[in-house]
Formats: sequence, C-alpha cells, structure tokens
Amino acid sequence: MHSAFVQQRRVEFCETDAAGIAHFSAFFQYMEQAEHAFWRHLGLSVHWSDADGPISWPRVSAHCDYVSAVRFEHVLDIVVRVDRVGEKSVTFGFEFSLGGRDVAKGSITAVCCRVFPNQPPCAIPIPDWIAARLRNGSPS
Amino acid sequence: MHSAFVQQRRVEFCETDAAGIAHFSAFFQYMEQAEHAFWRHLGLSVHWSDADGPISWPRVSAHCDYVSAVRFEHVLDIVVRVDRVGEKSVTFGFEFSLGGRDVAKGSITAVCCRVFPNQPPCAIPIPDWIAARLRNGSPS
Amino acid sequence: MHSAFVQQRRVEFCETDAAGIAHFSAFFQYMEQAEHAFWRHLGLSVHWSDADGPISWPRVSAHCDYVSAVRFEHVLDIVVRVDRVGEKSVTFGFEFSLGGRDVAKGSITAVCCRVFPNQPPCAIPIPDWIAARLRNGSPS
Amino acid sequence: MHSAFVQQRRVEFCETDAAGIAHFSAFFQYMEQAEHAFWRHLGLSVHWSDADGPISWPRVSAHCDYVSAVRFEHVLDIVVRVDRVGEKSVTFGFEFSLGGRDVAKGSITAVCCRVFPNQPPCAIPIPDWIAARLRNGSPS
Repeated sequence: MHSAFVQQRRVEFCETDAAGIAHFSAFFQYMEQAEHAFWRHLGLSVHWSDADGPISWPRVSAHCDYVSAVRFEHVLDIVVRVDRVGEKSVTFGFEFSLGGRDVAKGSITAVCCRVFPNQPPCAIPIPDWIAARLRNGSPS
Repeated sequence: MHSAFVQQRRVEFCETDAAGIAHFSAFFQYMEQAEHAFWRHLGLSVHWSDADGPISWPRVSAHCDYVSAVRFEHVLDIVVRVDRVGEKSVTFGFEFSLGGRDVAKGSITAVCCRVFPNQPPCAIPIPDWIAARLRNGSPS
Repeated sequence: MHSAFVQQRRVEFCETDAAGIAHFSAFFQYMEQAEHAFWRHLGLSVHWSDADGPISWPRVSAHCDYVSAVRFEHVLDIVVRVDRVGEKSVTFGFEFSLGGRDVAKGSITAVCCRVFPNQPPCAIPIPDWIAARLRNGSPS
Repeated sequence: MHSAFVQQRRVEFCETDAAGIAHFSAFFQYMEQAEHAFWRHLGLSVHWSDADGPISWPRVSAHCDYVSAVRFEHVLDIVVRVDRVGEKSVTFGFEFSLGGRDVAKGSITAVCCRVFPNQPPCAIPIPDWIAARLRNGSPS
C-alpha cells in the first residue's frame, strides 16, 4: 500500500489564533479537506451513491501530533497516505510540512457506511472496487 | 415590538485570530447562537415541526458593524431584539457590549420556510402563533 | 474604479450545516479569504510592514445577502471589487455565483491602521501607493 | 491523580455538517474549551503571566475516538480529567456523553512554555504550585 497524494493548503487568517499561529483544531479540517481531495483524485467523493443507496464514511478516530507552528499565509504541503484498508474501515495518514520543515503528523480512521435519512449509519464491507482504488491511490 | 433578550457569551481561544482579537466572522456565529437561544426562550426551536412538516428559517441577510475589539475570555453581553416581523420573514437585531462598552451591532433576517428533503426551501407566511411569540418576546 | 478579481473556492464539508448547505457565516470567511488573495494579487498582504511599522486593516463593517444555497464540493466563483477607496478606509464588494447562478452578494469595509503590540489600532490615511494599487486592482 | 471536572456544552448549528451531526473537528474545540474552563476553575488561565513573563501551553498532541453521533441542540456532558502531569507537560483526558450515552473520548497534551513576542515558545518545567493545582483539580 504505497499510495501517496500531495495537496497544498494556505493557512487562512481566520484559522490563526491569538498566539499568532494556526490553531491546533484547524489541522483536523486540513486533514479532512486533503482526504476529500484525495477521494476526488480517485474519481470518487467521500459522499457517494451506488445502486443500493448513499455511501458515506463517518469518522471513528482522529489524531494529530504537532512539531512546529505555522502562521498566516504559510502554504503547507500535506501528504495523504492510505495507511490501512480494512474490511469496513480505512485509515488515512497525513504529513504536514512547510518548505521541507516538519510541521505535524496525523491520521483519520473512517468506516464505510450506508446512510439513510433518520437512521443511524450502518457499517458495510468496503466494496471491492473502492478498496482497490484506495489501495492503488489512483482512479483505476 | 419591544422584545429583548440578553445572552452572555465567552470569547473562546479558537475564535481569536493572529491580531489577538475575536475574528469578525465569529460575531455572525455569536448572533446566530444568541438567536437560537432566543427561540428556545420562546419555547420553540429554529428547527421546528408542526402537523404539516418541518419549519426552518434560512437566512437571507446578515450584517455587523464593529466598534471595538474583544479578546480571549472576555464575556460579552448580547442583546437580542425582534426588529421586525413581516408576513414571511423576521429581522433580529443584536447589540454586543463588554462591561458597558459598545463592541458591535448587527442583524439577521430569516425567512419562514417549509423544508422537505431534496427540495429547495419554500417560503410560507409565519404562523400566527409563532409571529405572536416573536412579537411578545415570550413563550406565550 | 473598475478593479475586479475572481477567485474560485470549493465548499468544504465542515462548512456545511445540518440543513445540508454552506452555513451563512462561512460566506464571511470566503469573502475575507478572497480579499486576502486580492491583496496578494496586488503584490501586498493584508498584514504588511513599511519603514514606520506594521499596517493592518481591521474590519468595521461586513454584510451579506443570500440568494440561493450551495452544497458540499460546489465550486464558487467569487468576484472581488474595490467599491470605494476613502481617505482611511476601503470597501470591498463580493459576488458569489455557481455556474452562472447568483448565490450571494456582500461587502467588507476595513480601516488602514498602524498596529503596535498592546495598543489599540490607530487609523491612518491610506498611503498613496497602496491606494493607487487598490484603485487599479493591479500590482502597479 | 483523580481530578475531575464536568462542563456542559450545547451543540450549535454551525458546528453540525451536512450529515446532520456535529462535525468531528468540533470535538477538538469542545475539548479545548472544556480545558480552558478547567483552568479557570483552578483560579488560573491557559494564558497566564507571572513575574518572569507570560506562560502558555502549546498543544503537542490531540486525539479523539467517536462512539456515537450528536445533533443540533444536544447538550453534552464533558468530563475533564488530568491524566498525567509530567515535568514540562500535562495530558488532559475528556469523556463526552449525552444523557448517559457514550459519545466520544479524547485527549490533549500541552507543554508549559514561556512565550515571548517573535520567538518560538520555550518549554520550561511546570512551576510547582501550578502542577499541584493540576494534580488536585482544585484552586488550592
């Protein structure tokens, strides 16, 4: 599993805090936005429908370790990796850097679910063709 | 129409920016949250259902004028007023102050709508009993 | 004053709300981010320093009118205009559309200020060369 | 170390997403806000000054595991625990529940730092009297 995908993301002013740096919670939004860009890179979307109805990927775990701070208008490189494709879940790994300097490292684990209105999401095995794209890190 | 309602709201750290003050966009969230507290004070919710289905209040206009800055852990007084109850819309006015010092003044106009899944919201006349509560600023 | 600048912005998932659409407060962040991109287009930054110290542009007013809703992964066109360059303030106008459909229209007024640590910002006349770039909508 | 502190927090509309639930990134803001309330409960603030200058607590790690979803206007109980007081860092644990139902569990590790303008934060041993309050979970 060696899929890698890189996205650039500028730190916006509203994401900084009174310490003058990007707020730690912003990194979870950066991770999710990079993940969603990765789904689009696969020719998919994190919110998808097939013949049996909508598929979505609720998050069951997220973490981030912070190494150094970034500021307004810094442009981060975010590497997205597929760390693990399980039967029903996928774990994405993220590495943030700024001009080669390490900034942060994190991960998100999401579960493949059917989602119908007014019902709790129901975990299903990841369809084979989606699992294949996740493993390959490419649209085919 | 002299309904007034006051809510207190602490400035949280993630709402500050690198200029050291509450970001201007946070005031729109403060206004909405104070408005929603006001709906609860009326014995209602901004998302409500009656026998004919769900009623919601999409925003059609919002503005804010800023007088002075506030910082982390400042506790704001937010006065909520019902400035106008029209046939299908309501305009809320908001005054922010900190220990008597003027901070900001804003407004939100929202339209009474039926909202059904996968359809655009449909404006309806505000039910009389809801208009009465808005005008009175009280649950009856 | 006919300066115009267009930026594209994707609606991110964390910016949507339980009504399924981009939250109204997100448009104030979109406006500011488009404005900041415009400053960069002018060869400047909204946070700038010259020989006399740092210059920043605190917001004194913001408003937005909403015409139609947008959803996750919609890519908005945001037109930034310089509506007015006053002695000490500038007003930016913004028009949001989606594939030609009107979405929203807003404005932000900001004041040119010297900002020194632990002092309230102090309004100053906009330096002539900055006013010229704002009026021209170009780096020269 | 058995310090515990409970805070209630309403899920605000702007914190929900198009899946109809509180966005996973909101929990990191909930955790930090509960932590900051805990600092106030200790008679302190997360941004503090003593005779030697300002002390702050940059975050080096954060994680959250999600068990069940919550929606607009749900009022969460957030238990804050001090899981570990190290020489220079503290780890807070958080348990989210809704009317007794488990919702999420997370943690934040922060480092005690001197913070001077335009310098990177510098880690220092936690002053004894602050470490004592953290361990006791009380203002003395």
